Amino acid sequence: MCLFVVSHASAQRALVIQTDFGVKDGAVAAMKGVAFGVDPRLPIFDLSHENTPFDIWQAAYRLKQTAAYWPAGSVFVSVVDPGVGTDRKSVVLKTRSGHLFVGPDNGTWTFVAEDLGIDAVRQIDESLNRLPGSEKSYTFHGRDIYAYTGARLAAGKIGFAQVGPLLPPEVVRLPYARAQLGGDGVLTGTIALLDFNYGNVWTNIPEDLFAKLGPAYGDRFRVTITREGRALFSGALPYARTFGDVPPGEPLLYLNSLLHVSLALNQGNFAQAHGLAAGGEWTVRIEKISPASP
Amino acid sequence: MCLFVVSHASAQRALVIQTDFGVKDGAVAAMKGVAFGVDPRLPIFDLSHENTPFDIWQAAYRLKQTAAYWPAGSVFVSVVDPGVGTDRKSVVLKTRSGHLFVGPDNGTWTFVAEDLGIDAVRQIDESLNRLPGSEKSYTFHGRDIYAYTGARLAAGKIGFAQVGPLLPPEVVRLPYARAQLGGDGVLTGTIALLDFNYGNVWTNIPEDLFAKLGPAYGDRFRVTITREGRALFSGALPYARTFGDVPPGEPLLYLNSLLHVSLALNQGNFAQAHGLAAGGEWTVRIEKISPASP
Amino acid sequence: MCLFVVSHASAQRALVIQTDFGVKDGAVAAMKGVAFGVDPRLPIFDLSHENTPFDIWQAAYRLKQTAAYWPAGSVFVSVVDPGVGTDRKSVVLKTRSGHLFVGPDNGTWTFVAEDLGIDAVRQIDESLNRLPGSEKSYTFHGRDIYAYTGARLAAGKIGFAQVGPLLPPEVVRLPYARAQLGGDGVLTGTIALLDFNYGNVWTNIPEDLFAKLGPAYGDRFRVTITREGRALFSGALPYARTFGDVPPGEPLLYLNSLLHVSLALNQGNFAQAHGLAAGGEWTVRIEKISPASP
Repeated sequence: MCLFVVSHASAQRALVIQTDFGVKDGAVAAMKGVAFGVDPRLPIFDLSHENTPFDIWQAAYRLKQTAAYWPAGSVFVSVVDPGVGTDRKSVVLKTRSGHLFVGPDNGTWTFVAEDLGIDAVRQIDESLNRLPGSEKSYTFHGRDIYAYTGARLAAGKIGFAQVGPLLPPEVVRLPYARAQLGGDGVLTGTIALLDFNYGNVWTNIPEDLFAKLGPAYGDRFRVTITREGRALFSGALPYARTFGDVPPGEPLLYLNSLLHVSLALNQGNFAQAHGLAAGGEWTVRIEKISPASP
Repeated sequence: MCLFVVSHASAQRALVIQTDFGVKDGAVAAMKGVAFGVDPRLPIFDLSHENTPFDIWQAAYRLKQTAAYWPAGSVFVSVVDPGVGTDRKSVVLKTRSGHLFVGPDNGTWTFVAEDLGIDAVRQIDESLNRLPGSEKSYTFHGRDIYAYTGARLAAGKIGFAQVGPLLPPEVVRLPYARAQLGGDGVLTGTIALLDFNYGNVWTNIPEDLFAKLGPAYGDRFRVTITREGRALFSGALPYARTFGDVPPGEPLLYLNSLLHVSLALNQGNFAQAHGLAAGGEWTVRIEKISPASP
Repeated sequence: MCLFVVSHASAQRALVIQTDFGVKDGAVAAMKGVAFGVDPRLPIFDLSHENTPFDIWQAAYRLKQTAAYWPAGSVFVSVVDPGVGTDRKSVVLKTRSGHLFVGPDNGTWTFVAEDLGIDAVRQIDESLNRLPGSEKSYTFHGRDIYAYTGARLAAGKIGFAQVGPLLPPEVVRLPYARAQLGGDGVLTGTIALLDFNYGNVWTNIPEDLFAKLGPAYGDRFRVTITREGRALFSGALPYARTFGDVPPGEPLLYLNSLLHVSLALNQGNFAQAHGLAAGGEWTVRIEKISPASP
């Protein structure tokens, strides 16, 4: 019995919550109250809140940035949903990595499906998996269905099979331009995300693609950023190992913590300086400037 | 003894903290440090922070929105207090639902007292219930008295009877206009709260009162919002089951997750569009538009 | 074995995280995921986030405000670092009070070293203490080194001796003017911190120094605040026991929860009203106005 206690603790799984509700509101606290009521030992964490309202792209990217750093078995609830109450399905996605994702199938799972692989998708049977007494509420799926079901999965009160019927193993995907290297030696991609506090621009161009340009620290790259054909930035940036490699206020190109090509001003705000945002409608072009012609 | 461990865990009670301090400040972290020092196994949660400074109405409403979603036995500490250090009493309110509320008796308990019922009120004996060593501090009741006492209650280090002397079973109530239906078929109420991130307007008119107008989805209602006699909004809104029932940018009337009549713009900000705020000085009037005269 | 479970729980140590990352970003959640992966029973808390980017003074002061309120054994991770990737060392500071501080040795430990005393400092051996698989990441020490090492220390997976080699028992200190009382009866000090939400100004002048002016509640003090010689505020303020001692909108002098001389407007924002900020470049002068000449 003691062994049971110890092994239960060791198997403890986290519930990680993401919303576009403000932390000043009560909504997140109500969700946590419901989850705590399911099991007071449940470790409950915030992924992020105050996401840009209805911005599914941003919510999807936050999951990409973070989910893999949580152990297999962790349960993520994400409630960023412009179509709440419309006909998008409420689902639980189980990835091949063993993570669970609970919420609306509206594109939020785009990147985790891509990165972690789809094992199976089940539609939440809302007649079974719903906070008792909440039947009359039409508008707060986040609390009554998602937090409740996520908490029960994390606490082991239900298994994945009890979520509801199996769906085809696919999720709604947001369209976006994948990173590519053209025959002319030009890398193209999109702006995946802004690192808000600093204004760094994170592209979706991964290190292995960038490596095909043969970069060395100190090499300079021509970077052009356009939105629907209009250039908002064009400049020559050094590839830096750290921000401190360039003077304060100067731009640099670096690999971020996800190992994607990123752009920054040392101790400044690159995105704000040039009016940039994230999303599939942005194009980033990068080409190496020959060291012979500086 | 093993059973003891298991049952102890099952009886675990949450400490839920609300303040108008910024989360960038250290005040909330100091409160949590004190609570953690009382018992490292205590589950500690944020209800909300960065409430509008000194806005007791807002703090009271956050508790209304959330407290009932936490299990009986949960302990709430709320520190939103324009009169800190004046003669308002420091109390613990025990509601009939079994929740405990720790903080100043300045109106913060208005709605939980109304909704959950008053079981008993005790004044905190600050000579007994105070962080050891804090006797010289005059300004931080939140940490030295409220977090410390709340944590000791949640952890079972003291019982309710050890808080201090019983007071009459009443708390300070904020004045506000209760929702009512006039003989002319006009519902009146106030703006209870703004849903910040989205700008939705939550009235204090409950579903059962609204039901007396015989609403069906798609019916239209004349809504007028005034402040001290001056109209800031007047329009005809459909009663919608979900936001997606109206085109983006269009207004709608719906029941929120508390089952109160609410107003919103689909994918827009209703409050900002019309300059609205929350509080007892606002009047909302709602009447059904005859389906025969659309 | 049961006793082991109980005693393990009792010895539980907290991991407390401070960053200048936004809570809307995924960075903090990734750090927590790594820490949770080290030990799912680890109590993880936020000290504060969204600190002013790169503001080491502010980060150092947050630790001063809060660390001592957490039990000995608590582990603090602080990631506010304009020089990330430069040659400042990654260290763990153990204070005489038994708290551990993990992060860059860039001045962040100035005040905790001063207040809690230095027991020992070790440089983090990043070849041993690094999230497995993170060797290729150059930019996110907060997650891959600091959160991982802090979590392993808090969870008891490694001891302090396993952090890395001992350094001389000193840390980088931010220069600042210490509080002093001149022979002319004038107290001088600096602006230690702004209490953001309220705009209160916290000086670094402690109660014991202030006491040498023989203050009594109601006494008036001449306060002058200058920045590089230019006066931004000058006025006569009463020494108040509580904010409620003066009318709304009026200034007062009080002792804050750290027992330092502080300045405020009752229900107003003192710092904003006079354009004040925190840091060593500010000078605050305080002298008692003779009760005989009001």
